[in-house]
Amino acid sequence: MAEDKKINPFSHEHFMRQALIEAQKANEQDEVPIGAVVVLNNQIIGRGHNQTERLRDATAHAEMIALTAAFEYVGNKIIPEAKLYVTIEPCMMCSGALYWGRVQTIIYGAADEKSGFLSQGKHHFFKKKEIISDILRDDCLDLMQQFFKSKRESKG
Amino acid sequence: MAEDKKINPFSHEHFMRQALIEAQKANEQDEVPIGAVVVLNNQIIGRGHNQTERLRDATAHAEMIALTAAFEYVGNKIIPEAKLYVTIEPCMMCSGALYWGRVQTIIYGAADEKSGFLSQGKHHFFKKKEIISDILRDDCLDLMQQFFKSKRESKG
Repeated sequence: MAEDKKINPFSHEHFMRQALIEAQKANEQDEVPIGAVVVLNNQIIGRGHNQTERLRDATAHAEMIALTAAFEYVGNKIIPEAKLYVTIEPCMMCSGALYWGRVQTIIYGAADEKSGFLSQGKHHFFKKKEIISDILRDDCLDLMQQFFKSKRESKG
Repeated sequence: MAEDKKINPFSHEHFMRQALIEAQKANEQDEVPIGAVVVLNNQIIGRGHNQTERLRDATAHAEMIALTAAFEYVGNKIIPEAKLYVTIEPCMMCSGALYWGRVQTIIYGAADEKSGFLSQGKHHFFKKKEIISDILRDDCLDLMQQFFKSKRESKG
């Protein structure tokens, strides 16, 4: 295990921590705390955190922002070799974007049983994708649960 | 029928023609010719045409652009009273965006059996939405078929 870490410092946990840093930014801006990074050849080429409130735009999910940044970075609308790390399982919109961008590998922290794309069964869009779950799951989930708990409390 | 038209000049065909004007813009820019408009109280509050090539962004579908413009126009990330007109059945990404924006009514021209959101069965996201199809279907489809025909021919 220690050997593995020496050989590959760019672990899933490493990049998920970067997605968590993005989620924390959303949290500080009173946005639902979800963050994402797009990684190509062990380099982060796009970052995003949820900004639906600030931008008043229901499409401004962390994954969409990170993907658009990544497309811009590579100057291409497809990035098959890229990996998306996101703290919470992507929704249908974001997983559709991942399909069109041909992102091959999707790594998420915690499942979203209500709105996650897997809740609809594996659509043919995802047949050939690699999907990895539960990376730093508790950290990703805690951030969400604390956010919604504080929202409920502030409502009295 | 003539009476109906007198009473309501803002027919589905009227707004679908506006979406077709958008699709034609995409066509002229050598983009897959799909166009969309968002309508609120019989007024167009967002327009968009597919720009994935020009922007090199797989998320730059007609519907996404029209929706973001509409959110911007109303200053709100939800527009439950709005209707989306689009020339081709929305994909999973765009229908996810329609869900988050709580757009209640989706009107499309021609079905997309391969990538349309209905191909996956009606997801729970769409339980309460009104979905109207086949408005100016042939016009919407012809534009697409001619585009792909000319692409095939130019490939030799």
